[in-house]
Amino acid sequence: MPKRLDISDPDFEVQFKEVLGAKREADVDVNEAVAAILKDVANRGDAAVVEYTNRFDRQNLSAAELAFSGEELDQALAKIEPDLLAALKLAAERIESFHERQLPDMEDYTDEDGVRLGYRWTAVEAAGLYVPGGLAAYPSSVLMNAIPARVAGVDRLVMVVPTPDGQINPLVLAAAKLAGVSEVYRIGGAQAVGALAYGTETIKAVDKIVGPGNAYVAAAKRQVFGTVGIDMIAGPSEILVVADGENDPSWVAADLLSQAEHDSVAQSILITDDKDFADRVEAAVESHLKTLSRQDIARASWENYGVVITVDDLMRDGVPLVDRIAPEHLELAVADPDALSEAVRNAGAIFLGRYTPEAIGDYVAGPNHVLPTSRTARFSSGLGVLDFMKRTTFIGCNAESLNAIGPAAVKLATAEGLQAHGLSVSIRLNRT
Amino acid sequence: MPKRLDISDPDFEVQFKEVLGAKREADVDVNEAVAAILKDVANRGDAAVVEYTNRFDRQNLSAAELAFSGEELDQALAKIEPDLLAALKLAAERIESFHERQLPDMEDYTDEDGVRLGYRWTAVEAAGLYVPGGLAAYPSSVLMNAIPARVAGVDRLVMVVPTPDGQINPLVLAAAKLAGVSEVYRIGGAQAVGALAYGTETIKAVDKIVGPGNAYVAAAKRQVFGTVGIDMIAGPSEILVVADGENDPSWVAADLLSQAEHDSVAQSILITDDKDFADRVEAAVESHLKTLSRQDIARASWENYGVVITVDDLMRDGVPLVDRIAPEHLELAVADPDALSEAVRNAGAIFLGRYTPEAIGDYVAGPNHVLPTSRTARFSSGLGVLDFMKRTTFIGCNAESLNAIGPAAVKLATAEGLQAHGLSVSIRLNRT
Repeated sequence: MPKRLDISDPDFEVQFKEVLGAKREADVDVNEAVAAILKDVANRGDAAVVEYTNRFDRQNLSAAELAFSGEELDQALAKIEPDLLAALKLAAERIESFHERQLPDMEDYTDEDGVRLGYRWTAVEAAGLYVPGGLAAYPSSVLMNAIPARVAGVDRLVMVVPTPDGQINPLVLAAAKLAGVSEVYRIGGAQAVGALAYGTETIKAVDKIVGPGNAYVAAAKRQVFGTVGIDMIAGPSEILVVADGENDPSWVAADLLSQAEHDSVAQSILITDDKDFADRVEAAVESHLKTLSRQDIARASWENYGVVITVDDLMRDGVPLVDRIAPEHLELAVADPDALSEAVRNAGAIFLGRYTPEAIGDYVAGPNHVLPTSRTARFSSGLGVLDFMKRTTFIGCNAESLNAIGPAAVKLATAEGLQAHGLSVSIRLNRT
Repeated sequence: MPKRLDISDPDFEVQFKEVLGAKREADVDVNEAVAAILKDVANRGDAAVVEYTNRFDRQNLSAAELAFSGEELDQALAKIEPDLLAALKLAAERIESFHERQLPDMEDYTDEDGVRLGYRWTAVEAAGLYVPGGLAAYPSSVLMNAIPARVAGVDRLVMVVPTPDGQINPLVLAAAKLAGVSEVYRIGGAQAVGALAYGTETIKAVDKIVGPGNAYVAAAKRQVFGTVGIDMIAGPSEILVVADGENDPSWVAADLLSQAEHDSVAQSILITDDKDFADRVEAAVESHLKTLSRQDIARASWENYGVVITVDDLMRDGVPLVDRIAPEHLELAVADPDALSEAVRNAGAIFLGRYTPEAIGDYVAGPNHVLPTSRTARFSSGLGVLDFMKRTTFIGCNAESLNAIGPAAVKLATAEGLQAHGLSVSIRLNRT
């Protein structure tokens, strides 16, 4: 049974804090093993990458065989059945169209003192996309990670995906082809992250690495951070549904289960102002569970981490709870979702109204499905075009405008005891 | 003597790679000590913070004395001499005015399928600013870290600054007051980072921590990342001046020294297409050095890490080198800086033309002086308003638009084996 809380419970605050503080993932300390692999890849390049790949993925590859050929990608795409290909293409187009709106504005202006100021955004030159092998190899994730990079203008988009026992999901290759990935290598784990960060004879280094992975991949990304940029370290997925009693309980139950089926440590939370409705949703979850192929995973998630919270008023009581949970996905299954949506501060993505199940955003709506988990929506955003760009500011003074603002700089440099700073300004003053 | 390279040297590439790869900071492994302090602060709150503060900063404070009072801040501001106060105010106004232009646009539109899509940006609720004590306590850095947070709309701006032996730079407190900091605590080190990340009885937790610090602070920020957001981990400062032979060598020498005087591991690089000019700059550096109060630091930096590179053509040869160095600060001391500036991809900030010394950007120009170091301008940006905001995307379907795009989502969910994902969409289809 999921945890059941009511805001009028005398110990509600204690129980709610327990929900917020619950750790859903064991800390696996793989830092030393990862550090050794990274060092080896940095020193020995291809030789190390090939060795680890053959050992961990039970392969017998040479360095020349690490890359998928263009023909292999073309064939993967050619083999997809037409309906599925159409769905992938629709998803790719919609993701691209949404992300194009994120391209940032530049600034270039001259202020009243005659100082030219501004900034411009440029794409990182090369980006690496980590794609997990096995069960968690989702073509939708390839699109979500690759398309923002391509929209940003990244020159070189390098994908790595391990092929344990030679297995690869052809949909993942097809999605890579569709999304415009430039190179695809059959490597994974810390060795793949090392190859992307440091470069090898076969694989040129990139500037930024994105994409989800297991504990080894996460640790490797943390360790190479600084040498290259990384995206967020993703935790287990979560959904928070805020629903009034006017919903079909079986719809809301399906939404809760769509997170739960991801992972036994995923979390699904319902906040409602109707206790009877809460009961009906719980019953509907039980009923759906019987029909799901991934019912064991979904049931483990729902029973261990599911939470149902009843409140008196969704706006007054619910919104502050939403902000404290800072959910990755927030569904607002009410008649007027805008009012609630505008009141919410912390959420990765919001799904407005009764006809917007979270899963529509996982695939085809357009916004990114790579979103901040584990309460990090308090300070971070979903993946987007800006993650593949960086801003360069610029300043241009002439003799006159330096005369206008330079003396204040000299004054401050002197106060900070930085004489050469002051000199570099004062030496240029009064030249007109 | 600085390292001298010419692009036509047969071993130029080898030497240039040495420059790129040179480590200017020792790796100090303080991870275990920091982990112990953080854990203690998380468990014991104020008691731990007070103990570490009294021990490391040789203080005798109680928890009630950790905060600077409003009167202490007011007094610090009142005591500044008028000229310096005017300079600080000019800096604050110009920084604010530049950063206001970074406030991002929102999106809210309905596409041709009738799907409502968009995103909005909100400020993080609370931000912590780390300000180093002692020598590196710069009021300009307080302005540069605090003002973007205030422009973003952060509710609570919490500054921590250690006061070893009770010493505090009153200019730092004055800058905090000017910049609109809400709370200031006399704590530093890993214990301050822990207090900001986990909260104590006296200090409420924040959502994001920014600002420079020593190895303990940097390690603590890395360790609390995930619980809170952090800014980049800053390395030693660097400047790259690209100059033709038409410059006054003494101006360019002053600019090189303005970085060198920061820190004996700072780095100053000159790229020029005029060997005689290179000689004259080296001579001018020697001449300036004699007059500088921080000449020991500046000389150590210039002799150990200074580099002078001569090339045949600034555009053809120089720009690719600039992009590989990806400098924190790039000065373009040429007649037409725009052509070079537009060709450059990787730089934290660019200073255009002969009358724009880097130091003008440290204080009063307006753009942020917190910039990516150690080649990280390849993938990251200077501090800005977006660092204190996060983006929430939203999706709104109605029965009709879900019918339009839903079937593709069901198709993809089925292909990925995620049945409840498909169910949550299909259950809502064909309801009109």
